[in-house]
Amino acid sequence: MDKLIRWGIIGCGDVTEVKSGPALQKAEGSSLTAVMRRNAALAEDYAKRHGVSRWYGQADQLIADPEVDAIYVATPPSSHKEYALAAAKAGKPVYVEKPMAMNAAECTAMIEACKDAGVPLYVAFYRRGLPRFQQVKKWLDEGAIGDIRFVRTVHMAKPLAQTGEEMWRVNPAISGGGLFLDLGSHTLDLLDYLLGPIRDVSGHASNMGSPYAAEDTVSGEYVFESGVHGSGIWCFNSYADEEYNEIVGSKGSIWFSTFEEKPVVLRTAEQEQKRSLAHPPHVQQPLIQTVVDELLGRGKALSTGESAIRTSRVAEILTRAYYAGDR
Amino acid sequence: MDKLIRWGIIGCGDVTEVKSGPALQKAEGSSLTAVMRRNAALAEDYAKRHGVSRWYGQADQLIADPEVDAIYVATPPSSHKEYALAAAKAGKPVYVEKPMAMNAAECTAMIEACKDAGVPLYVAFYRRGLPRFQQVKKWLDEGAIGDIRFVRTVHMAKPLAQTGEEMWRVNPAISGGGLFLDLGSHTLDLLDYLLGPIRDVSGHASNMGSPYAAEDTVSGEYVFESGVHGSGIWCFNSYADEEYNEIVGSKGSIWFSTFEEKPVVLRTAEQEQKRSLAHPPHVQQPLIQTVVDELLGRGKALSTGESAIRTSRVAEILTRAYYAGDR
Amino acid sequence: MDKLIRWGIIGCGDVTEVKSGPALQKAEGSSLTAVMRRNAALAEDYAKRHGVSRWYGQADQLIADPEVDAIYVATPPSSHKEYALAAAKAGKPVYVEKPMAMNAAECTAMIEACKDAGVPLYVAFYRRGLPRFQQVKKWLDEGAIGDIRFVRTVHMAKPLAQTGEEMWRVNPAISGGGLFLDLGSHTLDLLDYLLGPIRDVSGHASNMGSPYAAEDTVSGEYVFESGVHGSGIWCFNSYADEEYNEIVGSKGSIWFSTFEEKPVVLRTAEQEQKRSLAHPPHVQQPLIQTVVDELLGRGKALSTGESAIRTSRVAEILTRAYYAGDR
Amino acid sequence: MDKLIRWGIIGCGDVTEVKSGPALQKAEGSSLTAVMRRNAALAEDYAKRHGVSRWYGQADQLIADPEVDAIYVATPPSSHKEYALAAAKAGKPVYVEKPMAMNAAECTAMIEACKDAGVPLYVAFYRRGLPRFQQVKKWLDEGAIGDIRFVRTVHMAKPLAQTGEEMWRVNPAISGGGLFLDLGSHTLDLLDYLLGPIRDVSGHASNMGSPYAAEDTVSGEYVFESGVHGSGIWCFNSYADEEYNEIVGSKGSIWFSTFEEKPVVLRTAEQEQKRSLAHPPHVQQPLIQTVVDELLGRGKALSTGESAIRTSRVAEILTRAYYAGDR
Repeated sequence: MDKLIRWGIIGCGDVTEVKSGPALQKAEGSSLTAVMRRNAALAEDYAKRHGVSRWYGQADQLIADPEVDAIYVATPPSSHKEYALAAAKAGKPVYVEKPMAMNAAECTAMIEACKDAGVPLYVAFYRRGLPRFQQVKKWLDEGAIGDIRFVRTVHMAKPLAQTGEEMWRVNPAISGGGLFLDLGSHTLDLLDYLLGPIRDVSGHASNMGSPYAAEDTVSGEYVFESGVHGSGIWCFNSYADEEYNEIVGSKGSIWFSTFEEKPVVLRTAEQEQKRSLAHPPHVQQPLIQTVVDELLGRGKALSTGESAIRTSRVAEILTRAYYAGDR
Repeated sequence: MDKLIRWGIIGCGDVTEVKSGPALQKAEGSSLTAVMRRNAALAEDYAKRHGVSRWYGQADQLIADPEVDAIYVATPPSSHKEYALAAAKAGKPVYVEKPMAMNAAECTAMIEACKDAGVPLYVAFYRRGLPRFQQVKKWLDEGAIGDIRFVRTVHMAKPLAQTGEEMWRVNPAISGGGLFLDLGSHTLDLLDYLLGPIRDVSGHASNMGSPYAAEDTVSGEYVFESGVHGSGIWCFNSYADEEYNEIVGSKGSIWFSTFEEKPVVLRTAEQEQKRSLAHPPHVQQPLIQTVVDELLGRGKALSTGESAIRTSRVAEILTRAYYAGDR
Repeated sequence: MDKLIRWGIIGCGDVTEVKSGPALQKAEGSSLTAVMRRNAALAEDYAKRHGVSRWYGQADQLIADPEVDAIYVATPPSSHKEYALAAAKAGKPVYVEKPMAMNAAECTAMIEACKDAGVPLYVAFYRRGLPRFQQVKKWLDEGAIGDIRFVRTVHMAKPLAQTGEEMWRVNPAISGGGLFLDLGSHTLDLLDYLLGPIRDVSGHASNMGSPYAAEDTVSGEYVFESGVHGSGIWCFNSYADEEYNEIVGSKGSIWFSTFEEKPVVLRTAEQEQKRSLAHPPHVQQPLIQTVVDELLGRGKALSTGESAIRTSRVAEILTRAYYAGDR
Repeated sequence: MDKLIRWGIIGCGDVTEVKSGPALQKAEGSSLTAVMRRNAALAEDYAKRHGVSRWYGQADQLIADPEVDAIYVATPPSSHKEYALAAAKAGKPVYVEKPMAMNAAECTAMIEACKDAGVPLYVAFYRRGLPRFQQVKKWLDEGAIGDIRFVRTVHMAKPLAQTGEEMWRVNPAISGGGLFLDLGSHTLDLLDYLLGPIRDVSGHASNMGSPYAAEDTVSGEYVFESGVHGSGIWCFNSYADEEYNEIVGSKGSIWFSTFEEKPVVLRTAEQEQKRSLAHPPHVQQPLIQTVVDELLGRGKALSTGESAIRTSRVAEILTRAYYAGDR
């Protein structure tokens, strides 16, 4: 393969050190050509440690670099929209860190801008590409559990440690919501991948005594476009940690955890199979490979702006009344 | 105690042989004085086998019998309203088999009539009195799991055997609904008992390929008046049977099955306790004892018309759209 | 296949109704030609119900029948030796019900007689042929658990119901021993099949308060000729029933129950697999097929006099001191 | 309580930093008065950090110190005997780290010397005093599982990491044996505490491919003086780690792990109870308290030279043939 996607990173911070930066280098048909960070010295440091030939202190310089084919926006959410629009304007494909943006309106603007510019937009919901969830998808596609009836999700956790470091995550002014938006969206995005889009959703959110403004508990039920039912409960103010999903069908069921390193389980009347599937060293690499493959015209990316905004909408419906002050 | 409640049964059929009839005899302060069945010969047979001194072929005779203090309506649902109203008119307390009536309108009429006549109305949701669920209630009341956060319910089952005998249960014209109304109402009634009334509820019902008119799958989520959240999935078209509830709090959780003879489980950070609690020989006896105690002015009955109609309303909301043809 | 083994049964009692009789008819290359029972009327009844053309009231008649190629001895243990020797004398292969005989001396005599007569001797340890244990054998042969390190056996049960019907099983004068000899020998025979002969064995037997003369508890440890270690505890005077074996190796482990209809389980670092494998309708059929195949010169029988006597010896060593009065 | 036991430590190394040293200070009626280490500078450092007033570079100085009432020998096993005899000669009670000595002969010499000198001898098998095992003992003493029938032990582990650091543990010349002697003795000592002395024992030891001289696998069976049976398998060359004991009786069973921080479990026909009991910060403190209490004439120590030597003998019998070259 002689064609190569040459990436530039805007915001070469923590997440790019192990999870994504090396993945952009190691994916087949992909290379990391340039990095940018407002503190140019840190950009240079990153570039030298990772063997990247060019570095910048300003985003527009990186976007304008003719050696850069595609842009990876890895800054905090507040600047995602700005950089995505600038990249689109330059006609360059965009891969945005999650969450996609501060709210659904920004997401929509990004999708529209990329569509108008004729460039694809991808979002880093990398779990879609991990071996564990690929195995679940494979079982579903093979019909291992027959016709799918419902999925149920349980996610409960002990109260958040009330350290300054953690509390920003439940300050809606900074994070855009609470732990449900932060963590629940990963599960909802996986369900969108595995079972297709949700058609109808209802639910309630509450704060049951947690010392912060965001919700700590959400109950939801939904029906997918396929007719499959769903039921989920999220509570981040419980006595213990437990998190898993179960997809049930006419011939079997599949059990998996979104966050915990546990085996995925297939059960039928005749047998039960537990498979332990480790994550790759650079967790974004499988997803990035599908993005690169799509850009090279030889495949289809697993996570796009369109799929990501569907999850945002579901999460917003479940917490809408809570944030409308209707508590 | 010299005061005694003397019961008359309208419809001394199967359910009264072991579950309730002997319970009316054995409860303290209670006796079974008369039985009625349209086939008077069968009424006589029942009376002689059970040592009951009087029997009738017509309900109005039994209701009018001055030796009968209270009426137990054990006929099929279609005649519950008629007999309950007649008993109320005669100024006699009523204990009605479940389901309470054919629909919420009938339930309301029964409640109103009893209220106007100044007689209490009870419904045979007997699980409330069973040792297993009394243990759950005790743990909750003692604060064993701290502040309650949510309850989740899973109820899935293999498809119904398609025998003539079973199919009436899923013919809404006869049974008033499907397996969710039949079985799910037991769980919803228990949750009403354990956690109080549900304040807000939403959900969806579907038939996912079952060869009958009723729904086979229901997903629901709800918030109780106490603020506790709830999430439930019912699917009677699955590859396997599984049924349980989990109530989760700030200090622990309680696990129990509504239908299966399994231990109830209390979990906290420090310990896990599984208790096997067998049902009494006459399963309605503990509930009937609370009814008798209330009638004798020394206690409070566990299941009334008011509690039963709450469960009917919740179940109806969850299946409303389905039966409105909005499938 | 035109060659056919024509069987004659000595003692067509209960065990031959479903487990073995129909199996002799249905195995490929096998037919059931004649049956014998001292009560000739019952022999005739059996023959007519099962479509067998010839029946006898005396064993020597059946053994002498030129249409009978091979003899199945299904009488109580006390006459196994006598009939096996008579069949051997007639030059006919023998398939003997388990237990093989009353004691090791009788077993040895049977083996010697068959060897001298040049006829093979088989014993009905039919579990060796069942799909569940064949799966275990297959996993072991494939190296699924790597090099085998040890096997451990747990077999505990509630005290025997003290009815007349059951008590003969623990009367050594009748049964030759207690529940360990009766039940434990099935497990030991399976281990002989799966792991090869035991080389060295030691243990203790006790009666810990059971109202009968036989032992109720046995602890044993052993080393197989392969070097694999084994550890087993049997207690038929416990608070509960539990019975299973686990074979552990360098790469995984296999779990199976000798008696309970539970899935067999394969565990490795990467996965766990549970397989539910039902018994065939006539449980002896798979073993009988291997016997017939060997007689027809196209395979190897799974259970012989030589394998059965090995298990008898191990069981005798474990209980020797107990029965020597050295309690 | 005005009486105080003043301890002196011989060999104030690692084990004394958290596990035992602070325990000698915190136990009621106990104080740590002096410490000794051949490198006197390190002894001084320890003394200053722990608030101990006196320190020495030579053991005889510490033993002779009139302010020291009792001696804790915390050196490597090779010098246990020498120091225990010196302390006994000085008429001072001795508390020896485990293993008690290099072999049974040394153990016997220590026991004899202490008996002759009229001083008590204790061994640091501290698990006997931990809350987890005290709970097991309490359940047994209360009759929670009825009459005890048997105990079974499973201890398997992945192969030892072959680093220089670890390999001395399986070099019999240094450690006196392999992992069974090192780890299995903790379980055997606990069983001696919970169930009393073992009366009769047999077993086999092997090395199944481990790259060291010691055994890696041991199978054993035993009968306690009480008549209780026992069965154990130890394999330190397995595909996984698993370790637990189960004591089974006529009314229930108790499950516990010797090494893993898992709940202890009580099962009966009616209930199952799992209790999580954390270790105290200084794990030797409960045992040391019983030693101090005995020295002050107000209690009985849980672990003595007599109990420790019983465990040594059992372990030696199980591995005798292996070390006799009879492999």
